[in-house]
Amino acid sequence: MSDNKVYRASTTAPVNIAVIKYWGKRDPKLNLPTNSSLSVTLSQSDLRTHTTASCSPKFTYEDSLLLNGSPQDVSGARTQACFRELRALRKKIEAENPSIPPLSTYPLNIVSENNFPTAAGLASSAAGFAALVRAIADLYELPSSPTELSRIARQGSGSACRSLFGGYVGWEMGSAVDGSDSVAYEVAPASHWPNMRALILVVSAAKKGVSSTTGMQTTVATSALFPARANEVVPRRMKEMEKAIAAKDFETFGKVTMRDSNGFHATCLDTEPPIFYMNDVSRAAIRIVEGINNAAGKTIAAYTFDAGPNAVIYYLEENEKAVAGLFKAMLGAKEGWGGNRGVAVPVNDEAMVKVESHAAAVATTLKEGVSRVILTSVGEGPMKTKDSLIDEAGEAIH
Amino acid sequence: MSDNKVYRASTTAPVNIAVIKYWGKRDPKLNLPTNSSLSVTLSQSDLRTHTTASCSPKFTYEDSLLLNGSPQDVSGARTQACFRELRALRKKIEAENPSIPPLSTYPLNIVSENNFPTAAGLASSAAGFAALVRAIADLYELPSSPTELSRIARQGSGSACRSLFGGYVGWEMGSAVDGSDSVAYEVAPASHWPNMRALILVVSAAKKGVSSTTGMQTTVATSALFPARANEVVPRRMKEMEKAIAAKDFETFGKVTMRDSNGFHATCLDTEPPIFYMNDVSRAAIRIVEGINNAAGKTIAAYTFDAGPNAVIYYLEENEKAVAGLFKAMLGAKEGWGGNRGVAVPVNDEAMVKVESHAAAVATTLKEGVSRVILTSVGEGPMKTKDSLIDEAGEAIH
Repeated sequence: MSDNKVYRASTTAPVNIAVIKYWGKRDPKLNLPTNSSLSVTLSQSDLRTHTTASCSPKFTYEDSLLLNGSPQDVSGARTQACFRELRALRKKIEAENPSIPPLSTYPLNIVSENNFPTAAGLASSAAGFAALVRAIADLYELPSSPTELSRIARQGSGSACRSLFGGYVGWEMGSAVDGSDSVAYEVAPASHWPNMRALILVVSAAKKGVSSTTGMQTTVATSALFPARANEVVPRRMKEMEKAIAAKDFETFGKVTMRDSNGFHATCLDTEPPIFYMNDVSRAAIRIVEGINNAAGKTIAAYTFDAGPNAVIYYLEENEKAVAGLFKAMLGAKEGWGGNRGVAVPVNDEAMVKVESHAAAVATTLKEGVSRVILTSVGEGPMKTKDSLIDEAGEAIH
Repeated sequence: MSDNKVYRASTTAPVNIAVIKYWGKRDPKLNLPTNSSLSVTLSQSDLRTHTTASCSPKFTYEDSLLLNGSPQDVSGARTQACFRELRALRKKIEAENPSIPPLSTYPLNIVSENNFPTAAGLASSAAGFAALVRAIADLYELPSSPTELSRIARQGSGSACRSLFGGYVGWEMGSAVDGSDSVAYEVAPASHWPNMRALILVVSAAKKGVSSTTGMQTTVATSALFPARANEVVPRRMKEMEKAIAAKDFETFGKVTMRDSNGFHATCLDTEPPIFYMNDVSRAAIRIVEGINNAAGKTIAAYTFDAGPNAVIYYLEENEKAVAGLFKAMLGAKEGWGGNRGVAVPVNDEAMVKVESHAAAVATTLKEGVSRVILTSVGEGPMKTKDSLIDEAGEAIH
């Protein structure tokens, strides 16, 4: 009797946006970083990857992955590393329990969907690899903790390790050559500081800049300022940031976030040839955040930029009008203000009047350069779901 | 019998553009820098300040300065420091030679004119203070060497000390608390490497950025990466650059120039709040220079940016068509191509064809953002001139 069952497990996983940036690999193959980093996990209501992992003895094809309806190449070293590590863990369980089905020997069929446009230029690989690893671990009924899985997801995409947790998440760089201690950990759950909000300004860029993998390798190889960042500056900031989160001290959280974003982009500029991810629109967003904080007399908004021109602006719920409300008044009609969260943002016309007299040119640059906004908040880590993207016969559900 | 003679001396002094940047003061009052720096003196045929210093017992007014026809405030600490130091040196000579006229006791009347538009955003204070100090030193018949005068000019404007010399000029940061060893020196005369050219792209900026005095103070106070630049990176680059100039090695000269410009702007970005002097037009110029060097298979053009968006591009005369010629084809009609030097630049339409297919957007950004060009070359230090801006009666000549 042949087993024709299709084994399935589904999960959703979040996007995370770092406040202490990951930039630089000490081991490119294992994605081992040159410094620790720290991120905020964003709510899956707004941004998530939904993944179903399946396997079956009846699957005749090789391992496969369908992302947003398009077949993906899974032969790359990174995806293969994740498959290999997860299968090895399953094999161990199978060896201990000969009665369970030998799932590790079946081809994997994975279907994945993002609830946000890839074109937005948001780092989708973090959510993607976190969901992939979590879904396969669930499929294999692995007893692994999120930290153990983070070690595997890291090999798929460095920052993916941080998407295995919700809330405020650290990634300890570690020191072991095999990467065994380079894992993510929970700094604080989302419930500790639940009123953290994020406004993402999606900037329409003429063309994609240097890929982050290539960029960080070049920075490590050529930037004269990089060693100071990796060896001295970031270790100090990691401590400051963990303390700020523990104390729910937005002032420090915001200042360190902005400092670290600028410091990261400074090492990009110090790279040979220089790497520019921010453009004049990004800089306009910085000036407006500075204006908001100056008007408030304290730091109530904090910008951060990944390897692209999009601005992510953190703020607390109680300052929604002062921060997101000003951008809503400034940007006018843009995709994103229409959603539940967007509609709820009060338009801050009063503050806009002041901006128009002080920084009209900056506001114009921003309005012309931002294509859409995303409103979100701190959120939870990967979640199991019964909503399967693959049917009982093993076919992708469209 | 009263002496009614008007004593006069006239000089011209050059602009200099640093290839290892001065950024950061360890003593703001004395303009003592946190690192040494190195510059190329530009030809006075294209950019110079012309200054006549005069004094007379018949002058009844206070010390005065007329710049481009506008009276200037000379009560500032920096101008006063220059006047005071020069008078002290004259007083010493007068004490030793009681027969010479006591010029140090007479009011100074100074008239100064730039041959380039102030609106161009070129650092005119360097040429201005160098001319002022040199003209007064000549008026007082001081036996001081350029290095001795550079110590005085430094107190007027830091980078002015480098404009006391022609060619390739270093500014040794020194270590003395009184600044006595923080002086300029000749690395090599213009005749050593006379075929060095400079193309200046004047970028129309919406508004002036942070002043360099304020900016450098903020960088020193807040940038986490700044100490590495000042203490480790620049000392190493000073040696590399002096060696490259001695060997007339443009490849190294160019690479270190670009690295140091980027490193300086990186510490500006790492400042809190971040300082941005370069804009999207500046970045377009960088991309074109990278394209020129890639096409040549070696570094034949080197960009550098001071505290503003203007690009200064160094190249050797033999590469004029490949470098300036491409910019001439790209920028089209702009003020500056019409001058003697501009007319001589052959339009490089062949290279432009390639740019249009590879980097049309970048070329458009540059064309729209550059308001005028200045073509110049390495040049000589301050020169005495008989062309006086003040007549025998002590009146400014218009």
